[in-house]
Amino acid sequence: MFDSNMAEKAAENLRRVREKKPLIHNITNYVVMNYTANALLACGASPVMAHAADEVEEMVSLAGGVVLNIGTLSPPWIEAMLKAGKRANALHVPVILDPVGAGATKLRTDSARQLIREVSIQVIRGNASEILSLPQERAGFRTKGVDAIHSVDQAAETAMSLARELGTTLAITGAVDLITDGNRTCRVMNGHEMMGLVTGTGCTATVIIGAFLAVDPDPLGAAATGLSYFGLCGEKAASRTLSPGSFQIALLDALYEIGEEELKAGARIQTGPQVTATE
Amino acid sequence: MFDSNMAEKAAENLRRVREKKPLIHNITNYVVMNYTANALLACGASPVMAHAADEVEEMVSLAGGVVLNIGTLSPPWIEAMLKAGKRANALHVPVILDPVGAGATKLRTDSARQLIREVSIQVIRGNASEILSLPQERAGFRTKGVDAIHSVDQAAETAMSLARELGTTLAITGAVDLITDGNRTCRVMNGHEMMGLVTGTGCTATVIIGAFLAVDPDPLGAAATGLSYFGLCGEKAASRTLSPGSFQIALLDALYEIGEEELKAGARIQTGPQVTATE
Amino acid sequence: MFDSNMAEKAAENLRRVREKKPLIHNITNYVVMNYTANALLACGASPVMAHAADEVEEMVSLAGGVVLNIGTLSPPWIEAMLKAGKRANALHVPVILDPVGAGATKLRTDSARQLIREVSIQVIRGNASEILSLPQERAGFRTKGVDAIHSVDQAAETAMSLARELGTTLAITGAVDLITDGNRTCRVMNGHEMMGLVTGTGCTATVIIGAFLAVDPDPLGAAATGLSYFGLCGEKAASRTLSPGSFQIALLDALYEIGEEELKAGARIQTGPQVTATE
Repeated sequence: MFDSNMAEKAAENLRRVREKKPLIHNITNYVVMNYTANALLACGASPVMAHAADEVEEMVSLAGGVVLNIGTLSPPWIEAMLKAGKRANALHVPVILDPVGAGATKLRTDSARQLIREVSIQVIRGNASEILSLPQERAGFRTKGVDAIHSVDQAAETAMSLARELGTTLAITGAVDLITDGNRTCRVMNGHEMMGLVTGTGCTATVIIGAFLAVDPDPLGAAATGLSYFGLCGEKAASRTLSPGSFQIALLDALYEIGEEELKAGARIQTGPQVTATE
Repeated sequence: MFDSNMAEKAAENLRRVREKKPLIHNITNYVVMNYTANALLACGASPVMAHAADEVEEMVSLAGGVVLNIGTLSPPWIEAMLKAGKRANALHVPVILDPVGAGATKLRTDSARQLIREVSIQVIRGNASEILSLPQERAGFRTKGVDAIHSVDQAAETAMSLARELGTTLAITGAVDLITDGNRTCRVMNGHEMMGLVTGTGCTATVIIGAFLAVDPDPLGAAATGLSYFGLCGEKAASRTLSPGSFQIALLDALYEIGEEELKAGARIQTGPQVTATE
Repeated sequence: MFDSNMAEKAAENLRRVREKKPLIHNITNYVVMNYTANALLACGASPVMAHAADEVEEMVSLAGGVVLNIGTLSPPWIEAMLKAGKRANALHVPVILDPVGAGATKLRTDSARQLIREVSIQVIRGNASEILSLPQERAGFRTKGVDAIHSVDQAAETAMSLARELGTTLAITGAVDLITDGNRTCRVMNGHEMMGLVTGTGCTATVIIGAFLAVDPDPLGAAATGLSYFGLCGEKAASRTLSPGSFQIALLDALYEIGEEELKAGARIQTGPQVTATE
């Protein structure tokens, strides 16, 4: 039922991240900066946070991946994201976008759409309501803050056409994660509901995919294997504690502790052009 | 000696927060954003941080409560706080202000006073020296940074008249917390001195009150019960560890773990128009 | 082999920090603010973060030490650092600079150099590649992000002349820390490689030195003893856990738990004008 090739690919990507230690350049929100930096270190990558318009292009030139996250947006940061993204495109550095709260406010929806129009983005990771707010013609669509009001199943029907329309790979996370590049789909069954009790786990999923993108040229594979690894870390952390403070810490520990063999054995990734219900 | 009605109200407010999961919109300082977001999640509420002037009014319209915290202030953030606060007033969304460091610098004192003049604020939570710096006629008053140089007892004498003057409920936290709306007073005896060893526990008390305000229309009750719950979490965390790193985590765990019955049994709230010394 | 006078001085400095509880004013990066504030509290000092140009001079006047850290720089923050640094000089408040990522981008290198030109700085703490990017004549030098690409040993040869040239004390951290004021040198052998797996441990070393500077008028001594204390905390934390999330917390615990006697016994500081290889 689960794809053993993808499980091997997950292990191989993790090995490469730890070997190559790619520098991941983050222009991200204030809430999660410390946590996502620690998550990148724990998984084997090297984080840098830099947002000044004056330096982002230089920083991108040193990076193996760029993470753009609109969680605490303001106009100078949008400008910096556009500059960094365009420079990354010119240098063929992969870019991942986390459209935090897209759909909740016009600023966020418009900013996410502008980034998608002006930058070639390899992966967009968000919850279903965020992802569904991204196409131009859905202006007026609203979500309740950063919470997901649409299920992954609702999203699945439109995700493939949306990925084609946006020309990117979509990683829609929820109880089950759906990843599609418009032609292929994956579903990742790893994860634990405790992850919803810690702020920034979505943003952390994004940076982990960013690290995997730095070592895997296939965005669909990088996203699916990155989410499987991160989900497995959530499962391991939940096996230790079901209280959210301790879980936040145990999740960082798991990112560091989980090895290639453990990931290969624990990855639960389904592949196939056809999205089928699994619950 | 302790008010059993208030203890029941505390449990009831906690139940409502967990049932209603109010979205709490925070415009707050960089230092505590991650921690207060996690605290809100742990207690059952839903946090969002958004500070761009372009989006705060929209975000307020989705929120059950608004937290304004001046801990790392700069002019664009003051503008955003004013816009958010005024919009919250128009929509009858409760607003809580944390005047971090008011009295320490002119920018903070003036900003807190401007917010109080231009926005109707349901609760102001601060330490005694911060609260005492808020009236206009005390210009020139200075504190040593964000530390409390006035005791709760010093503050008690003037707190009721100050609450009437400012037209709000004051929650003055210290070894004993004093809450007054100008007519009524409460004292909360919950808490633990370890809370002073973790940055942002004051800010966290503020967001917890913010979550309680979203489910309780009585600011005095919301503040007293919220502080009692948070103080009890501090006691529970201190029963597990007396080292500050571990305590920071144990406090988040306790916010999640403490149930209604445990809160009803552990709440130590005194009520009465007369403030009496209790030590 | 280790200097027992320096070990006693370390213990004495720690005692003074806990007795005097100096207010340390930080203008620092978003990533580490929460962690460094907690580290300062855990060691016995009192942190404040304030970056608005309108208030930094007032805040400096309340402080026992000023920490300038360029980790997430933008132009308004540079302006604030210059104002704060100049005011600190006028008031004889010690200033420590952490040139995070100097050498990686022109903005960071130029900003660090401008701060050094316009502000009298008592200690600069960085890794070898950051420190080596600071002299004017090395324009064009580049590092790989915030990672150290030069060893402490490479740096040792030039550190003394560089300290004289820059007119400050340099604290170059790595597997072994090298501290020099141009005339004297110290090497600190405390520390643990786990510290490299947590974001902001370099920044935290800086704030600890900042707290020690507030009680010790000798920058070389403050830097060497502060680094020894912090390194010993890393060793203690590593004796408890080798996973990075738990280590981040254990390190804060150790800052609080380590007493004067434990520090005196554990400090491993070498002194001498001659820098000799020790591995």
